[in-house]
Amino acid sequence: MNNPIIIAIDAMGGDDSPNKIIEGISFHAKESKNVNYKIFGNINYIKPLIEKYNLSSDRFDLIHTDKVVEGEDTALSAAKRGKMTSLWLAVESLKKNEAHAIVSAGNTGALFLISKLNLNMIENIDKPALSALWPSKKGMNVVLDLGANIECSTKNLVDFSIMGSALLKALFINETPRVALLNIGSEELKGNAMIKETYQILNENKYSLFNFKGYIEGNNIMEGEVNVIVADGFTGNIALKTAEGTSNFIISELKKAFTSSFIGKFSSLINFSNLSRFKKKLDPRLYNGAILLGLDKPVIKSHGSTDSIGFANSLKVCEKTIKGKLIEQIKKNIR
Amino acid sequence: MNNPIIIAIDAMGGDDSPNKIIEGISFHAKESKNVNYKIFGNINYIKPLIEKYNLSSDRFDLIHTDKVVEGEDTALSAAKRGKMTSLWLAVESLKKNEAHAIVSAGNTGALFLISKLNLNMIENIDKPALSALWPSKKGMNVVLDLGANIECSTKNLVDFSIMGSALLKALFINETPRVALLNIGSEELKGNAMIKETYQILNENKYSLFNFKGYIEGNNIMEGEVNVIVADGFTGNIALKTAEGTSNFIISELKKAFTSSFIGKFSSLINFSNLSRFKKKLDPRLYNGAILLGLDKPVIKSHGSTDSIGFANSLKVCEKTIKGKLIEQIKKNIR
Repeated sequence: MNNPIIIAIDAMGGDDSPNKIIEGISFHAKESKNVNYKIFGNINYIKPLIEKYNLSSDRFDLIHTDKVVEGEDTALSAAKRGKMTSLWLAVESLKKNEAHAIVSAGNTGALFLISKLNLNMIENIDKPALSALWPSKKGMNVVLDLGANIECSTKNLVDFSIMGSALLKALFINETPRVALLNIGSEELKGNAMIKETYQILNENKYSLFNFKGYIEGNNIMEGEVNVIVADGFTGNIALKTAEGTSNFIISELKKAFTSSFIGKFSSLINFSNLSRFKKKLDPRLYNGAILLGLDKPVIKSHGSTDSIGFANSLKVCEKTIKGKLIEQIKKNIR
Repeated sequence: MNNPIIIAIDAMGGDDSPNKIIEGISFHAKESKNVNYKIFGNINYIKPLIEKYNLSSDRFDLIHTDKVVEGEDTALSAAKRGKMTSLWLAVESLKKNEAHAIVSAGNTGALFLISKLNLNMIENIDKPALSALWPSKKGMNVVLDLGANIECSTKNLVDFSIMGSALLKALFINETPRVALLNIGSEELKGNAMIKETYQILNENKYSLFNFKGYIEGNNIMEGEVNVIVADGFTGNIALKTAEGTSNFIISELKKAFTSSFIGKFSSLINFSNLSRFKKKLDPRLYNGAILLGLDKPVIKSHGSTDSIGFANSLKVCEKTIKGKLIEQIKKNIR
């Protein structure tokens, strides 16, 4: 058996933590036999949960601390809480090469700042980018940047194309990265100067890692023709959140339709298996696990409000980034 | 009876035109007794349709021309086709005060350029903005700019707030405009310099026309807490199109769920009335009719691929902008 993958986990961040964290670990541990966990947090809360969810003692180390980063902390105030918070200790274990990846369901800004303080940037990358999975009609997209950088240079967007492609390959080994720039038209002439310049660079250079497919408009993100979608952090964030809001709106309208009458209820009952397949495809827990790219170790952010199934998915993302050699791929392809 | 409202109509643009145009007019004419139509286009195609759809001769003028702007025209090549195209003649009739509003389902760029060439900007407005309706859980939003201006100044965004509010009031007289700036966070500190400066201006000045509610994130656009959403044209376009793509994706997944099995089909059959209510709420024809704001006459763009029901809705938008005194409202409130 190979040396196990070790995931460092801040067990204290996010809603219903550490309960969902430990249950999520127990789900993941059953599926992935060659992964071990370094769990950082308060032993008084965590120990009973480890017993409750039956996590075998040879799969984890538990590192106690009673200091935590709060959800309300700014990134700065979180960092100022010092080096004994569960988050800081978890990130630090990567720096010391005691773990291969870190995941937290807590404060996003704090995770990013403390990671940047402790880990190194990959050489030749100026800015880290936040990326996430986004379903399409043909599978799964990687979209970045989702808000780490409000303003970006052409160099940043080219780097994002490479990092996003490396991530797609690490997560879905059979996919060929097809990169597009998110823009307001598909013709070469549209968009602002920065996007047009990036288009030229990506179009003229040959990249062995991915195929450049030009521009994509918001309405085509989910068509599946391309699977790595690149934008500055402002635009990417607006797109992601608008998709989330639209999805919530439609599902809530659909629920109204199905529960507003007896016939609706009856019909949704007999149609249960079909609707549950539909709901499964849209289940945000399946896409849980955003990745901060650009640092020399994988840093994964679980949604704070996800449950144990969602958290287990973010552990799967950690595992895949290690197995898929994400960081090596980025290093090899960045110029 | 008051003098009738007169709507100038380019009958030749968009898919299946002039058929859907004339049928759309016939729908609208039945509902709105005090509106007449100036129809511009080829009499050879239009005359038989007027008979087919039984449009009464006292409700319209038909102005013949066999010149048309093509869908493939650039804005510039469309303008170069000269002053005898159905689009140019329709816009020109506003300039001559022979009609109160113009609608076209044809080439968007051409409509905007020819409108700008023929009509005046409202005093103190630098840039026109494209706005459209967007459903929310509590009713209907106005969103702008949707792509007329890739880059905007703070002055532009303040103007958009005023124009969008005037539009909301013209379309939905009982609504109080609640304006928000589309941004990537709801805290005052987030966003780029231009957005933050606009926030300050809108927050410090008192506007009698609307209440300023701060920032809104993409996921809250459809919640209904605010109803006028302001962004630069790049951001607004990305948001609108992403919402459209997400909606298409979900509906297509839903259809798969309902038709992938016998039970699914049976169940959707008995649930027909509920589903059709759901579909109605999401029907893009209901929101058809984007408005170019900033010119001193209402310029309305119907979606090119909509049908006669959608086109009739864009005529309703024309009528409401006139009855609701859109232009007067903007003039009164702009500084």
